[in-house]
Amino acid sequence: MFETAELGRKIGKKEYEAELPALRTDLLRLQFELRDRDFPVIVLLAGNDRKSCNEVLNVLHEWLDPRFLQANAWGRPTDEVRERPIFWRYWRALPPRGRIGIFVRAWTMQAMVLRLLDEIDEAALADLVGHVRRFEGELVEDGALVLKFWFHMTEKKLRKRLESAKKDREAVLMIKKQDRRIYGDYERAMQTMEHVLRRTSTGEAPWQIIESGDDRYRNLTVGRALRDALAGRINGASEADVKAPAPPTPPLTGDPLTVLDRVDLTRSLEKDDYQKALKRGQARLNRAARDARELGVPSVLVFEGWDAAGKGGIVRRLTAAMDAAQYRVIPIAAPTDEERAYHYLWRFWRHLPRAGQMTVYDRSWYGRVLVERVEGFATEDEWRRAYAEINDFEEQLVDHGTVLLKFWLHIDKDEQLRRFQAREQTPFKKYKITADDYRNRERWDEYELAVNEMVQRTSTDVARWHLVPANSKRWARVEVLRTVCRALEDACRRAED
Amino acid sequence: MFETAELGRKIGKKEYEAELPALRTDLLRLQFELRDRDFPVIVLLAGNDRKSCNEVLNVLHEWLDPRFLQANAWGRPTDEVRERPIFWRYWRALPPRGRIGIFVRAWTMQAMVLRLLDEIDEAALADLVGHVRRFEGELVEDGALVLKFWFHMTEKKLRKRLESAKKDREAVLMIKKQDRRIYGDYERAMQTMEHVLRRTSTGEAPWQIIESGDDRYRNLTVGRALRDALAGRINGASEADVKAPAPPTPPLTGDPLTVLDRVDLTRSLEKDDYQKALKRGQARLNRAARDARELGVPSVLVFEGWDAAGKGGIVRRLTAAMDAAQYRVIPIAAPTDEERAYHYLWRFWRHLPRAGQMTVYDRSWYGRVLVERVEGFATEDEWRRAYAEINDFEEQLVDHGTVLLKFWLHIDKDEQLRRFQAREQTPFKKYKITADDYRNRERWDEYELAVNEMVQRTSTDVARWHLVPANSKRWARVEVLRTVCRALEDACRRAED
Repeated sequence: MFETAELGRKIGKKEYEAELPALRTDLLRLQFELRDRDFPVIVLLAGNDRKSCNEVLNVLHEWLDPRFLQANAWGRPTDEVRERPIFWRYWRALPPRGRIGIFVRAWTMQAMVLRLLDEIDEAALADLVGHVRRFEGELVEDGALVLKFWFHMTEKKLRKRLESAKKDREAVLMIKKQDRRIYGDYERAMQTMEHVLRRTSTGEAPWQIIESGDDRYRNLTVGRALRDALAGRINGASEADVKAPAPPTPPLTGDPLTVLDRVDLTRSLEKDDYQKALKRGQARLNRAARDARELGVPSVLVFEGWDAAGKGGIVRRLTAAMDAAQYRVIPIAAPTDEERAYHYLWRFWRHLPRAGQMTVYDRSWYGRVLVERVEGFATEDEWRRAYAEINDFEEQLVDHGTVLLKFWLHIDKDEQLRRFQAREQTPFKKYKITADDYRNRERWDEYELAVNEMVQRTSTDVARWHLVPANSKRWARVEVLRTVCRALEDACRRAED
Repeated sequence: MFETAELGRKIGKKEYEAELPALRTDLLRLQFELRDRDFPVIVLLAGNDRKSCNEVLNVLHEWLDPRFLQANAWGRPTDEVRERPIFWRYWRALPPRGRIGIFVRAWTMQAMVLRLLDEIDEAALADLVGHVRRFEGELVEDGALVLKFWFHMTEKKLRKRLESAKKDREAVLMIKKQDRRIYGDYERAMQTMEHVLRRTSTGEAPWQIIESGDDRYRNLTVGRALRDALAGRINGASEADVKAPAPPTPPLTGDPLTVLDRVDLTRSLEKDDYQKALKRGQARLNRAARDARELGVPSVLVFEGWDAAGKGGIVRRLTAAMDAAQYRVIPIAAPTDEERAYHYLWRFWRHLPRAGQMTVYDRSWYGRVLVERVEGFATEDEWRRAYAEINDFEEQLVDHGTVLLKFWLHIDKDEQLRRFQAREQTPFKKYKITADDYRNRERWDEYELAVNEMVQRTSTDVARWHLVPANSKRWARVEVLRTVCRALEDACRRAED
C-alpha cells in the first residue's frame, strides 16, 4: 500500500512555479462556483507525517479563499468533547452545503491513535472503524464530496524527525512524545494504519496515498486532485447523480513515475547458475508442497504481468515440481457466458483450493482493475469499487489460513518487442502473438498507471504484491520459486505450532 | 424490533384462498419476465423460527417454477466447506442473472449461531458482520435484488416447540439440541440476533421482520413482498437505476394491524391518585436528576406522538422537578435555513448534553421517518436509509453512557378530535390548532403504518420505544415520570459501580 509513496518523487521549482498560477486561479474559481451548489466538500488530511498535514492545511488556506473555508485541527480532546460521543466534535464541525471543510487528523486517525496507544482493544477498533465507514457513507449519500489524503513518510525520515525534536517548544514536545510512542514499533504502527486505511477506503471515499518527501510534489498533487474532483462534481452536478465521483488517480509527474520504475531490470543469472538454482528450487518446492498437503495448508498463486513476460514458463517450472493431483492452473481469459451471469468475483471464488491444495491463477481478478479498466470493459464505478471488493476477498482467504502470493512479472517495452518478434519467427509459438498484443502495447503507459494504483490499493500487509524483474527469464523463475518455497515453509511452520 | 411481530396477526382461510390464485399467477408471470433481465434475485429466509424458514421455502417452490429457482439450505458444514473461507459456499450458490436464489438460514444466521454457540468472540462477530455487509453491498451494487425475511416466534411458542421434540427423528433431534443450547438463554439469543439484524439492516437490503405464528399470514406476507419487489424492479429496470429498490412495508392485514393497536388506551387515574403520584414522582425525579448530575450521567429524552397527545404537558411536569440549569428542551419544527444546509442529523448532534445534563427533544430525528416520509418531504431513499442512520446514532449515544429514552404518546382518533375542539374553545389554546392539524388527521392510517415500521426498525435492545397510552393525560404523565426515574436511577447505580 505504501510502496507507491516511497519512490522519491520530486517536482522542480521551475515546474512548480509554472503550474501554480493556473492551478490557484482554477481552485478559487471552483470554490466560488461551489457556493451555489447544494453539496459540501470534506477534505481529510492525515498520515504518518504530521508536519505535512499542517503544511498542506496552510497551503490550502493560501490558495483558497479562507472566508469560505473551515479548518479543523484536533488536539487533545477537551472536557466538552470527552463528555460526548466521539463523533460529536466532527458532526459539529461539518461544513454546510456550498463550503469546503478541512479536517486534519480527524476520525480515522483518531481510531488508529487510540489503538496504537492501547486505549482501545481490537474489538473496539473494529467497532470504531464501522462507525467511520457509516459516517462517511451517510455524508456521501447526503451529497457530500469526500476527499481523503494520506501523507506517507518513509521510516528513515520519520525516525530522523522524531530524533531531532530537541530544539522544539514544549507543546510540540508532547506531540513528539506521543508520536514516539506510536512509532516506537514502526512495523506495528504501519500495520494498524494500513488495516484501518484498507477498511475505510471505500469506492465512494477512497484514500489517496501521497508521498510527502518533497513539498512541491505533495502540494501540487493535493491541489490537482482537489481541482479535478471539484470540477468533475460541479460540472456533473446538474445531473441527478447524487453520488460523489471518485477522485482521480493522483497525477504522476516527476521521475520515477510508478512503482514499476523502481524494479531493477538488470538482474540476471548465468545459465549454469540458473540450472543449479532451478534444480535446487524445484526440489525444495517439492518438499514444501508435500508438507503443505500433509498439514492441510491451502495456497493461491496469482500471476499478472505484461504480455510475453513469461508467466507460462514460470508456472510450468512450478508445477513440474509438484504432484499433479495437488494443484490446478486456472487460466483467466474473457469470462464465459455463464460467468458473465454472475458477480465478477464469482468465477474466482469457485476455484478456491481445499485444504492442502494449490490453485494457480494465470491472470486473475485483477483483470477488473487492469484490462477491464484500461479497455473500458468495466465502468469507472465498477473498477473503482473493485479495490475494496478485492481486499475483502483476499482478507477472507488469508484469515482462513490460505497462503496467498501475488506476482507481477515486469519487463520493459523493448524486451517485450524482442519477444513478440522472436515468437513470430518460431513456428510453434507464432499462434501466441496476435494484433491484440500490439494494440495493448500502445496503451503501455495507461497500463503502467493502472498497475501503480493497483499496488497502492491492494498491496497490503495481508497480501503484498511481488514485483518481479523478468527481463531475464531465468532470474524471474528462480526468484518466484524461492518466494513460493519460503511462503509455503513459513505457513507449514505456523500450521505445526 | 420484535414488538411488531408479536401482535398475533392472522388471516382467515377464506381471505387466504381468495387472494392466492391472483398472487400465484403474478409471481409466475414475474418469474418468467425476470428470465430476460440482467439481475439476480436473492431471497434470505431466517429467523428464530426454523420451521417457518423451511415451510416458506416449500411454499415458494410450490408457487414458483422450480426449474428457475435455486434453493439452498445449510446444514452442518461438510469438509469441502470447512476447508474454505466461510463465504465460499454462499458464493458458489449464488443465482445467475435472471434467476431467483433462496437461501435458508444462510450467512447472517451463521454469524449469529457461531456467536451463540461461543465458537467465535465479539471481535470475530464484528468482523463477520462486516463481511456480511460488504458481501450484500457488493451483490446489490452488481445489480442484485436482495430480500431478507426474518421469521419471529414468541418466546412462549418457541419453548413449547423445543419441549415437544421427543417424537422427532434423530436428525431433527440434533438440530433441536443446537436450538436448545441457543435458546436456553432466550434473552441473550434475542439480543445477539437483534444486534446482528440491526447491523445488517441497510438501506439497500433491510430485514423484514415477519410474525410467524399464523401460516397464512406469514405466507401471504412473503408472497406479496416478493411480488411487489419483483414488479417494482422489473418495471423500473428499464431505467439506468442499478440499485435495488427497497422492499415495501409488509402488507398489514388481519387484526390487530400495528403495535399501536396493542396499546391499552383504557388506562387512567383518579384525580386524587394522580396528584399524589405526580408529587411523589416529581420528588423522586428531583433526587435522581441531582444524582445524575453529580455522577456525570447525561440523558436524552425523545417525545413523539400524535398531535394533541399531550407532549407539552408531560415535558413541563418533568422539567418542573428539575434545576433549570440541568436541562434543555429542544422543540423540533421544520428545519431552519441553516439546518437545511447540513445532513439532517446534524441539528440533533449539536444539542447533545454534556456529562450530567439532559436534553429533551420535543419531536426529534424521527421526523425523518414520520412526517417527512408521510408528507413526502424526504425521498423514499432518504427515509429508508434513515433507520440505519438513526440506529447508528443512538448506539453511539448509549455506548457513550447516555441514558436514552424514547416515548410515543398514543391517543385514539376520537380523543384527538375532542382535544382539537376543546382547544378551539379555549382562548389561550386556540393558537395551537391550525388547518394543518386537521390535514394530518386525514393521514392517520399512513402515520400509523409509519409508526409501526419505526418501532420495527428502531426499537432496539439499545434504545427501546416506550409506547405510552395517553388518552388519560394523568396516566401518561405519571407513567413517563416513572420510566424516566427508573432509567436515571439504574444509570446512576451503574455509574457508581
